[in-house]
Amino acid sequence: MSFELDEIDVIPESWTRSHLLDLESLSTEEITTILDTAGRFKEATHGCKQKIDALSDHTVANLFFENSTRTRNSFSLAARRLGADTIEFSSSGSSLSKGETFIDTAKNIEAMNVDVVVVRHATPGTPHLLAQNIECSVISAGDGPHEHPTQGLLDILTIREHRGNLAGLTVALVGDIAHSRTARSNIWGLRKLGAHVIVCGPSTLVSRRWEELGVEVAYNLDDILPRCDVLNLLRIQFERQYTRPFPSVREYALLYAMNGDRMQRAKDDILIMAPGPINRGVEVTPDVADGPHSVILDQVTNGLAVRMAVLWLVAGARER
Amino acid sequence: MSFELDEIDVIPESWTRSHLLDLESLSTEEITTILDTAGRFKEATHGCKQKIDALSDHTVANLFFENSTRTRNSFSLAARRLGADTIEFSSSGSSLSKGETFIDTAKNIEAMNVDVVVVRHATPGTPHLLAQNIECSVISAGDGPHEHPTQGLLDILTIREHRGNLAGLTVALVGDIAHSRTARSNIWGLRKLGAHVIVCGPSTLVSRRWEELGVEVAYNLDDILPRCDVLNLLRIQFERQYTRPFPSVREYALLYAMNGDRMQRAKDDILIMAPGPINRGVEVTPDVADGPHSVILDQVTNGLAVRMAVLWLVAGARER
Amino acid sequence: MSFELDEIDVIPESWTRSHLLDLESLSTEEITTILDTAGRFKEATHGCKQKIDALSDHTVANLFFENSTRTRNSFSLAARRLGADTIEFSSSGSSLSKGETFIDTAKNIEAMNVDVVVVRHATPGTPHLLAQNIECSVISAGDGPHEHPTQGLLDILTIREHRGNLAGLTVALVGDIAHSRTARSNIWGLRKLGAHVIVCGPSTLVSRRWEELGVEVAYNLDDILPRCDVLNLLRIQFERQYTRPFPSVREYALLYAMNGDRMQRAKDDILIMAPGPINRGVEVTPDVADGPHSVILDQVTNGLAVRMAVLWLVAGARER
Repeated sequence: MSFELDEIDVIPESWTRSHLLDLESLSTEEITTILDTAGRFKEATHGCKQKIDALSDHTVANLFFENSTRTRNSFSLAARRLGADTIEFSSSGSSLSKGETFIDTAKNIEAMNVDVVVVRHATPGTPHLLAQNIECSVISAGDGPHEHPTQGLLDILTIREHRGNLAGLTVALVGDIAHSRTARSNIWGLRKLGAHVIVCGPSTLVSRRWEELGVEVAYNLDDILPRCDVLNLLRIQFERQYTRPFPSVREYALLYAMNGDRMQRAKDDILIMAPGPINRGVEVTPDVADGPHSVILDQVTNGLAVRMAVLWLVAGARER
Repeated sequence: MSFELDEIDVIPESWTRSHLLDLESLSTEEITTILDTAGRFKEATHGCKQKIDALSDHTVANLFFENSTRTRNSFSLAARRLGADTIEFSSSGSSLSKGETFIDTAKNIEAMNVDVVVVRHATPGTPHLLAQNIECSVISAGDGPHEHPTQGLLDILTIREHRGNLAGLTVALVGDIAHSRTARSNIWGLRKLGAHVIVCGPSTLVSRRWEELGVEVAYNLDDILPRCDVLNLLRIQFERQYTRPFPSVREYALLYAMNGDRMQRAKDDILIMAPGPINRGVEVTPDVADGPHSVILDQVTNGLAVRMAVLWLVAGARER
Repeated sequence: MSFELDEIDVIPESWTRSHLLDLESLSTEEITTILDTAGRFKEATHGCKQKIDALSDHTVANLFFENSTRTRNSFSLAARRLGADTIEFSSSGSSLSKGETFIDTAKNIEAMNVDVVVVRHATPGTPHLLAQNIECSVISAGDGPHEHPTQGLLDILTIREHRGNLAGLTVALVGDIAHSRTARSNIWGLRKLGAHVIVCGPSTLVSRRWEELGVEVAYNLDDILPRCDVLNLLRIQFERQYTRPFPSVREYALLYAMNGDRMQRAKDDILIMAPGPINRGVEVTPDVADGPHSVILDQVTNGLAVRMAVLWLVAGARER
């Protein structure tokens, strides 16, 4: 896959979206376009280290209404590696606390000639509402438990880098499925690219109704483990749960933590992923998290690549 | 008004100020210089979208001792569109909480080779105190209820863009005049440029003493409405008031909200302005805020243009 | 000392460190290399005002787990004057509050292709722990009461600029020695460069055991004052002390504040320094802080120069 920097300047004809709101509504071809573009950016910038002047004279606004350091910084760095300026808005200290509506806040940001708004909000559908009401491009950085499309894309890019193709792979999402926007985005993306998806966790966190999304539901990790090509170990979000979904953390770890013993019973080339931040000893033990099958830190680097690609594609489509 | 980018590099001979502390002390010519410069920047950068390398190698510090997202980001973006670096200081977590004086904080910022300090503080006169004690340029971003000069300038620029000239226009400032630094800056600027200014609101928020500033005082919006070319609907600052200045929000809206019914009785070409963030249904109803007479979002874009102009003028005068 | 900008592009052969964790482990030659480099940067950039493209395509992360405006902004500005991008992490709102380990947080930052991590933490040894666990360069911005190496370096650079040479000078560190990382870094650096160091303060804040570091211990400022070439007036950290180390602030000031009266009994060319933020009237009276012997604001500017030098040296050594 040899290419020139100039090639990056041409957005594929087939890409027409000026927003990225979820993976549910994307076609297989559109997802592939993002992944290909991310790969090209990664190669052109020596792993997203160098800058490309693809979005100079552009401004990207981070509009985060939930705490985030990692995703916020990832978007911010991706924007600046494309030569864009960034501005930061958060809920505390913002005009929202002065009685302004959400749409008015966004319209005011847009009126500062912002080109792309990256939005995270606790309410599902917020990015879609925004996209209907402002002219600039909108990228979802997570809307409540609904979707977190760039997380899904970076997970899929990481698998593709290591396996070449998603078709025919079995990918298990393990743990807190109920609260996970990452799970939903992975499911939509993985299935469109032909992977078989299993959601696995305690029944308090994994409902049979997930089968409606075309995935397999499992409650016993050890049963499905020998079939899995990839395990994506979702975080137990201690800070979100008001009722205990399992008797104790120790019991959860006993049943679902990926540890050295379970690695013995997994495929030889299994990939261990986790969207992070990880709780060591809960979803994954340190020997596995830091072991040769772990691609957890690759996911972080691919987050930059995917976000550079998405920023560039949506901004380009809007200007076309 | 055709021009070249190079022309922007020459600051008018008549501009000698290295600070912008208020509009009260500016001459009519100086205000016009800022507005003209803002207009040229806006044109040269396609509405403040592109960058100009007018202040590269400069650093602008935002020193905000009151919460602000909008004005802070507007100054920050304006600085970066001129090629300057920006740094952010705020009261929480700063050295002030360690016993340092305000002037020492500012001198320390200056010693980092900062060129322009943008300051917002709850105490009137703070920008003036700063300008007397540090060498770098000082721009007020609002000092308590005193003045908010760049807000006044962006309001006036917006009117000038739509009407061509301020002279002879009747501009009403409606609402919470007592607490409003925006009102004071508008009054000084508008009167110097020849506009007739009316301040209008409940008597608890509009004192007869405002007549001393050469403005007309009115308590009934419906009485003055037919004469107004511009309405600037000031925000009811619920977060500031400790005593209720009116019986109920509903009563305020009944008497002072700009709504569709009042639009029928206004001039055909009336301009509706609001410094934002707006309380929909209090100062203005949604149909008017989003209607064809509203220039509320133009004000936001003009904020960038005015701040680019002011940053460039004060930094240039200091170096001359 | 004439030179070209190009000369800065070559890191001295003798510099091999990709981290700056403390001054204790640096050789005299290494300290001199940093000071010389800082001096060259300062000259090449007209006192750190202009930019140099020495670290473009680099990213510097500020990872601050203690409040800081000054040091954080100094590192951030230094990085940007070298052409680097910066990202900010702080403890509040970060993934640490979600159960992630400190090392995992750092590894995630590294995976975003960060080149240099600047870390401040309340726990001594944190920078060393980080340097052992991540690939990118680590610079300490202070680890609890242990060391604050760039503060020590900027203090020493300031003395060297005014005296030419450290050898043979008598430098007194006055005040809160017990809680001061600045004191430790100054002691290591000053002694390696041949200065005689006195630590002076109330016995509750200055232990005899400091003699083990090769410094003179004194309890009476007036006794040692006539011998001092430099006084570095450490801040009484009111926000840190849980037991009162002296009966009253007034008593402390009476015994240890540098004031006009004491200046009469000091050497004619004494230098007055303070790492700031200063408590006026406690460690130093306003006439002395603002007087001709004070180099307090020079220290701030030299902070930029030292941090530019250190960022450039450690990043360069890592890539060699």
